[in-house]
Amino acid sequence: MDKNTLLEILKGVEGGAISPDEAASKLSTLSYENLEFANVDHHRALRTGFPEVIYCEGKSPHQITAIANSLWTKSPTALIATRANKDAFDAVRNVCPNAVYHQASRLVTVGETPAFTEETVAVVTAGTADIAVAEEAAITLTMLGVPVERVYDVGVAGLHRLIGNLDKIAKCSVVIVVAGMEGALASVVGGLVSAPVIAVPTSIGYGASFGGLAALLSMLNSCASGVGVCNIDNGFGAAWLAYRILKK
Amino acid sequence: MDKNTLLEILKGVEGGAISPDEAASKLSTLSYENLEFANVDHHRALRTGFPEVIYCEGKSPHQITAIANSLWTKSPTALIATRANKDAFDAVRNVCPNAVYHQASRLVTVGETPAFTEETVAVVTAGTADIAVAEEAAITLTMLGVPVERVYDVGVAGLHRLIGNLDKIAKCSVVIVVAGMEGALASVVGGLVSAPVIAVPTSIGYGASFGGLAALLSMLNSCASGVGVCNIDNGFGAAWLAYRILKK
Amino acid sequence: MDKNTLLEILKGVEGGAISPDEAASKLSTLSYENLEFANVDHHRALRTGFPEVIYCEGKSPHQITAIANSLWTKSPTALIATRANKDAFDAVRNVCPNAVYHQASRLVTVGETPAFTEETVAVVTAGTADIAVAEEAAITLTMLGVPVERVYDVGVAGLHRLIGNLDKIAKCSVVIVVAGMEGALASVVGGLVSAPVIAVPTSIGYGASFGGLAALLSMLNSCASGVGVCNIDNGFGAAWLAYRILKK
Amino acid sequence: MDKNTLLEILKGVEGGAISPDEAASKLSTLSYENLEFANVDHHRALRTGFPEVIYCEGKSPHQITAIANSLWTKSPTALIATRANKDAFDAVRNVCPNAVYHQASRLVTVGETPAFTEETVAVVTAGTADIAVAEEAAITLTMLGVPVERVYDVGVAGLHRLIGNLDKIAKCSVVIVVAGMEGALASVVGGLVSAPVIAVPTSIGYGASFGGLAALLSMLNSCASGVGVCNIDNGFGAAWLAYRILKK
Amino acid sequence: MDKNTLLEILKGVEGGAISPDEAASKLSTLSYENLEFANVDHHRALRTGFPEVIYCEGKSPHQITAIANSLWTKSPTALIATRANKDAFDAVRNVCPNAVYHQASRLVTVGETPAFTEETVAVVTAGTADIAVAEEAAITLTMLGVPVERVYDVGVAGLHRLIGNLDKIAKCSVVIVVAGMEGALASVVGGLVSAPVIAVPTSIGYGASFGGLAALLSMLNSCASGVGVCNIDNGFGAAWLAYRILKK
Amino acid sequence: MDKNTLLEILKGVEGGAISPDEAASKLSTLSYENLEFANVDHHRALRTGFPEVIYCEGKSPHQITAIANSLWTKSPTALIATRANKDAFDAVRNVCPNAVYHQASRLVTVGETPAFTEETVAVVTAGTADIAVAEEAAITLTMLGVPVERVYDVGVAGLHRLIGNLDKIAKCSVVIVVAGMEGALASVVGGLVSAPVIAVPTSIGYGASFGGLAALLSMLNSCASGVGVCNIDNGFGAAWLAYRILKK
Amino acid sequence: MDKNTLLEILKGVEGGAISPDEAASKLSTLSYENLEFANVDHHRALRTGFPEVIYCEGKSPHQITAIANSLWTKSPTALIATRANKDAFDAVRNVCPNAVYHQASRLVTVGETPAFTEETVAVVTAGTADIAVAEEAAITLTMLGVPVERVYDVGVAGLHRLIGNLDKIAKCSVVIVVAGMEGALASVVGGLVSAPVIAVPTSIGYGASFGGLAALLSMLNSCASGVGVCNIDNGFGAAWLAYRILKK
Amino acid sequence: MDKNTLLEILKGVEGGAISPDEAASKLSTLSYENLEFANVDHHRALRTGFPEVIYCEGKSPHQITAIANSLWTKSPTALIATRANKDAFDAVRNVCPNAVYHQASRLVTVGETPAFTEETVAVVTAGTADIAVAEEAAITLTMLGVPVERVYDVGVAGLHRLIGNLDKIAKCSVVIVVAGMEGALASVVGGLVSAPVIAVPTSIGYGASFGGLAALLSMLNSCASGVGVCNIDNGFGAAWLAYRILKK
Repeated sequence: MDKNTLLEILKGVEGGAISPDEAASKLSTLSYENLEFANVDHHRALRTGFPEVIYCEGKSPHQITAIANSLWTKSPTALIATRANKDAFDAVRNVCPNAVYHQASRLVTVGETPAFTEETVAVVTAGTADIAVAEEAAITLTMLGVPVERVYDVGVAGLHRLIGNLDKIAKCSVVIVVAGMEGALASVVGGLVSAPVIAVPTSIGYGASFGGLAALLSMLNSCASGVGVCNIDNGFGAAWLAYRILKK
Repeated sequence: MDKNTLLEILKGVEGGAISPDEAASKLSTLSYENLEFANVDHHRALRTGFPEVIYCEGKSPHQITAIANSLWTKSPTALIATRANKDAFDAVRNVCPNAVYHQASRLVTVGETPAFTEETVAVVTAGTADIAVAEEAAITLTMLGVPVERVYDVGVAGLHRLIGNLDKIAKCSVVIVVAGMEGALASVVGGLVSAPVIAVPTSIGYGASFGGLAALLSMLNSCASGVGVCNIDNGFGAAWLAYRILKK
Repeated sequence: MDKNTLLEILKGVEGGAISPDEAASKLSTLSYENLEFANVDHHRALRTGFPEVIYCEGKSPHQITAIANSLWTKSPTALIATRANKDAFDAVRNVCPNAVYHQASRLVTVGETPAFTEETVAVVTAGTADIAVAEEAAITLTMLGVPVERVYDVGVAGLHRLIGNLDKIAKCSVVIVVAGMEGALASVVGGLVSAPVIAVPTSIGYGASFGGLAALLSMLNSCASGVGVCNIDNGFGAAWLAYRILKK
Repeated sequence: MDKNTLLEILKGVEGGAISPDEAASKLSTLSYENLEFANVDHHRALRTGFPEVIYCEGKSPHQITAIANSLWTKSPTALIATRANKDAFDAVRNVCPNAVYHQASRLVTVGETPAFTEETVAVVTAGTADIAVAEEAAITLTMLGVPVERVYDVGVAGLHRLIGNLDKIAKCSVVIVVAGMEGALASVVGGLVSAPVIAVPTSIGYGASFGGLAALLSMLNSCASGVGVCNIDNGFGAAWLAYRILKK
Repeated sequence: MDKNTLLEILKGVEGGAISPDEAASKLSTLSYENLEFANVDHHRALRTGFPEVIYCEGKSPHQITAIANSLWTKSPTALIATRANKDAFDAVRNVCPNAVYHQASRLVTVGETPAFTEETVAVVTAGTADIAVAEEAAITLTMLGVPVERVYDVGVAGLHRLIGNLDKIAKCSVVIVVAGMEGALASVVGGLVSAPVIAVPTSIGYGASFGGLAALLSMLNSCASGVGVCNIDNGFGAAWLAYRILKK
Repeated sequence: MDKNTLLEILKGVEGGAISPDEAASKLSTLSYENLEFANVDHHRALRTGFPEVIYCEGKSPHQITAIANSLWTKSPTALIATRANKDAFDAVRNVCPNAVYHQASRLVTVGETPAFTEETVAVVTAGTADIAVAEEAAITLTMLGVPVERVYDVGVAGLHRLIGNLDKIAKCSVVIVVAGMEGALASVVGGLVSAPVIAVPTSIGYGASFGGLAALLSMLNSCASGVGVCNIDNGFGAAWLAYRILKK
Repeated sequence: MDKNTLLEILKGVEGGAISPDEAASKLSTLSYENLEFANVDHHRALRTGFPEVIYCEGKSPHQITAIANSLWTKSPTALIATRANKDAFDAVRNVCPNAVYHQASRLVTVGETPAFTEETVAVVTAGTADIAVAEEAAITLTMLGVPVERVYDVGVAGLHRLIGNLDKIAKCSVVIVVAGMEGALASVVGGLVSAPVIAVPTSIGYGASFGGLAALLSMLNSCASGVGVCNIDNGFGAAWLAYRILKK
Repeated sequence: MDKNTLLEILKGVEGGAISPDEAASKLSTLSYENLEFANVDHHRALRTGFPEVIYCEGKSPHQITAIANSLWTKSPTALIATRANKDAFDAVRNVCPNAVYHQASRLVTVGETPAFTEETVAVVTAGTADIAVAEEAAITLTMLGVPVERVYDVGVAGLHRLIGNLDKIAKCSVVIVVAGMEGALASVVGGLVSAPVIAVPTSIGYGASFGGLAALLSMLNSCASGVGVCNIDNGFGAAWLAYRILKK
């Protein structure tokens, strides 16, 4: 909770407009809605510039509908649900009939956010199989109002493909690199551009990728300095970090 | 086997009421029933205050029915079966028609236990997706006669939700924290309350949670002293530890 | 920060005794002392009943002396420093000439705390080599004012040694089991007593103990319900959990 | 290949009965049958006293039929197929109409072997869920001509169940302990009997059993000396080791 | 290699000023100096705004002197050497007598870089033991011309310490969180500020931190979106990522 | 990109036949075709002697058809698709009606390549269950124009089977060893032949093979010097390494 | 505790020779001696045929002397101490001046045990570097009264060395295979002999042996059935298992 | 043992020149020398073209001298000892006064082998810190009679350094890539050259390299097909594989 809000409430107390008990309660309850199974964080739009996002895994359709309803009532412009299957999509559609389902990336989106910046984020993949994760990042960025440059299938096994697209990548303010297998693309891109690089390992690969562990360790050990790593297959998190960087 | 029982039997031998051979046999066989595939532990109610609980995973419906029958015959007041699917539920219902199935938490319960204490256990989750595990703990506690305070979806990404509920949590004698992903809630709660904290990592999370390993290691390394950790997704074990603490 | 303090300060603001700005500052700074490299938590004694404990690993002697000084000035009755080597001991002695060094358990203690309870904590080890960790727990408990019953070297390879001591263990309100190798003692004790069991894996063992991992996993998977597990070799944490249980 | 056979062939060469080229070829090809996809080892019955066993995993029904045919033709008294599903059973039945399918343990057996010894092997499980693996061991032993004593569900959480059955176990020449979760039973049995103990970890358990890893490490680190460990869920291997011990 | 340089050289070839062979050679050799055991990258200052940094681990003093000489000759304003022991410091001093050794963080620095921005990077630690890694980040940032705000020892076990410093942190454009043990601080800070958060796990902790693995996994699984993770103990890499963010 | 091509283009620029801008573009775009979701690498046939191979995992049928079309248009003699299911096969057949599906090894192949060498590669398996991976290697080799000698089911549990086939293996120029379980065959073969040995661990095995990890580590630690290891179940990669060795 | 002893004491109680209280106490205390830090297990000689063995790791010289004294007083014929350094040796010599120190295997032995059997145990190593562990097994066997046949440095990289020694190995009743690196020797020997095979992985090897993990997994996954695995570097445990086999 | 030798001996038997017993003995003992603690493999020079190499780790100086003596007596032209410390060097010098010690790579070499081929092996490193391992490979190759091209410190963080040296690398028949950290160099080189690539991960790197695991997994998952991986830091093994490739 930021200090300004705290001071404001305290000043209300000083001026007598707010009783101490009310103030204490306010501090706790103003900013989220209790649905028993969820405390929907309405304060997040203030803190981050975008409403809370629904992570669908492990939630029942009934719960998703209720959360979507709570969010859409307060912030009826844009909504994102991640890791959504078809049932989760239907659960959101109960509230927002215009919801769109992006099957490969398992996102549900509603509404639009106009771009708040002209800076662009490059979303780069090593292979075609990494695109599902990359799209989770790219669509999220668009929803957050960030322009995106997609550069797909430029893995290091055919370096000329990367170099042929370097121009496009080098113009961007932030570069998200999505790669499975050995994840070497993050290091190579990190050595070629000066923008911050966000690396997303994917679970694509033969046996010893161990579900993305190989790419994860590879990216954490990148010989190119200045690479920040996200969780395996977490395109959403990478997009949010890029958004933080452009919003700061 | 506790010493008192041992002494009693020995005194019976001394007094001639029990022959040595009988005594030896008694020591071995009195306290459980042999069903070939299971040795149902009827002594457990004496040792722990509650009958043996049926762990359904890897047991056939036929075996579950037989064990339930053996338990219910000796202790016809309350029965718990964990990790139960629909078939296991039906297997218990063969014996106890009033059995209730808690689908999300995969528990079958029969009967009730009146509360033996006024002390309350808080069951706290980081997210909505952790509720299935939390309910395994909460329902088990109720079955064991322990009052429960549920506080769900107060993860550290929106700290004000936790602080708004701190009051409720701080009144409890034991706090069970159920969290997936990075499991940070256990440390934060551990730093805010003085009651014993029981941490249950869940398998909820993106790739590098490695089935709950991330939250497990996180909780074991809690910077807040005095946190006891249970197995991944083991809400039942956490409830039992809380019960031991209140029963001691 | 507990609600009572919050309300008190807010009431001060309401009554005009405290200005909002002062209040905000008070909330932040009252309760700890900033030494640049450390924020000594003077609020902890209120929260937990015992002052902050100095974890010496990674701290310079100079830092330890300064922290000890800050703590001893505010709470001149008892002080604990953990993971202390000889230099750390000397660093504490600069401030507290009566400090005592417990070499095997690497603790430095100053002063005494009278027992606040008659309930006793059993500290049980599987082997002689586990005693260093057990003593970290036992001495910490004594410092916290908790009576201790030591039962050492009763591992399951010679079960009669455990059964011969069961009496002593069963009388205690909490049982701390310290074991390396396969850590089976935690499960066996957990099956024999009804008190809460706190399990501490140790790093004692041949190659495939992998620094205590074997005992750790073993204890987390205990077939006896109601065992809470602490970090490898963390006798201090186990003591603190026992203290929380007895203090609740 | 044993030296006697080598010497015999060499003497044949010396005496002129066998040409060097024939000898070299004989050494290579006499003892197995080449089915393109399999080299059925007919020499194994000589080496080990029992024909090669068919490990069905990864083999097509056609391949299983062909191997069964090759084995049954040479050794038409007894046959074992492990890790068999229903299709594998049918594939064996094409050759041996009397084949029996043991569903829980996934074994197919044909024929019988009269007991070659009066020594008995105890097969002991911690829980009911471990019985499938235990039966793989017990049925294999019977097929190999070894008497079996089954003692199931005597895990250490209720130690009196184990002690009540100790008599039966202690009479056996070899003890196979099958346990999941923390696998403590192996250590406890190892401390109570003087016979060789063969420990089989199972994949039964909550999350942090990591597919049997917890029990495996536990058994490898047993504080009771003289425990030999087999692969996770490998009841067959344990039976074979017991057989080697009794056959030596 | 960026496109502009490529085009320039190609235009030189077109205009006849450069022969094709020269061009090809130029492309390869202009930008680094071959010392046999090292190819010092003089192009890096152009690409990144700062000369190559010497990673001392595994390099002999002789090699370090030669590399430092090569770098200082071309860019005689500022130089950084990381993971330096005393010998490495002496090796740099052979070339740059004004070199400074930062023992705790194992950095050698020479010269100064004036701040290129008024934006500030917060470097926050959970404990005092994490300061060595934090200083690697803070000193590197200063060398790169970035203002730093240090906030040390504000781990979540005493949340009021963090909240009391939130003001200072929230004013910064980028936040680097350095934490060992369970690394929860990254998630909590990530939920409280809107700036990009760079998380650095440290190897500080008891046994089951497994050399920083616990904090690493924790940070990768942060429930607060938008956290980029660096390698264990890699304060330098975190600083460089912050620098990329501010330089973009 | 090889130097010759670079020089040629540069000479074109020098002679005025190519403008610098054209040259830069040429360098980037000549050698692959952009399908949005894939950059098909037409340069690979020049670099490696065989067109790009389609890795089907994670690609939609539509994508596979488009890539197959792009490849077959440029190189209408031979095509390989790996990790193909039935849908992927149909997707290739849309373009190449003569495509053949190898179900066990999950390969789709089109066309033929005449053998370019008389040297032979031995493909050796430990068991029958390893054949699927071995066939991925063997069929790939045939497609690449390399003669193959298959030697299947000669694992070390029946060493005479291996020795009986040693002749055939020892005549080959390269030996690929495919083995699951403990992977010992790679070491034994490595000690018996002087040709280079390529080891492919498979995921065949009981629980503690951990998906091929046991065989992988075993092969990496081979006591026979000169064994190169490929990824788990990666028969294709082994074939390609053999091809590189024979093509060099 | 075996049943006979139990019955005897109970009969004493029945006959009045022993009071119940005495009996209970007897059961607990008769069989071990409490040294505060150790409960020396004097019952072990009865149970296993050999006195308790001192595991020196983590024990102080003072403790070792006391335990040695307690053991030697009761069983003054033979004594073994494992994992002993020079100080531990001196600690034993205080009690037994004739103690012998076996430096490579870190054993201290006192006295002799005449062979109780003519059956022999083969101790086989893959390399010279595995001999330290092998000697721990071989010397322990000798102390236990078991004849030993040493066959060292016959790893599979030079299979003829193994085959040249097969004769000697095949004559033995039990075979202990000690191997590091990939541990393939266990499987190869297991396929060549019919005796029970005890496999001991060692920590000898390059990086990816991960302290013996590679050999451990290899041995657990042996394709030769009937191999029992011991802990890494645990020659002592292997010897004890062999002893159990021969004693049964 | 190769078939030719077998046939020869068999023919000797046929002709009466050799008795069967002699033959059997010859087969076993001719080809190695038994030093009790080592079976020196004199047959290896025939099988591989170079005498056995002494792996010094875990061998005493006395053992090394004896093995060196045995080898040098039979093959007095060239000798290699790996993983040698100063004592091992002295142990070899007892036998071969001309021995040379290569400290960084821990090799001892004696004598020379003239080049048997004009084909060259490139030894390429990512960084300067990888050179110790690279030199183990390069010096071993020279000893085996293979010309070497060293290309050091061309990691992907500065891709122009690699491209500037590509010419030299592309001319070689085999490429050994030695890299720590994320090991991306192997994939990039694998995509740029058509020769077989042998990848050697090194243990160089920050915390999450986990002793070379990151580079190892990275190389095993290389997106460039046809990369064979060796053990961590095993330059010797890589050299031997290259030698096998050139010798085939």
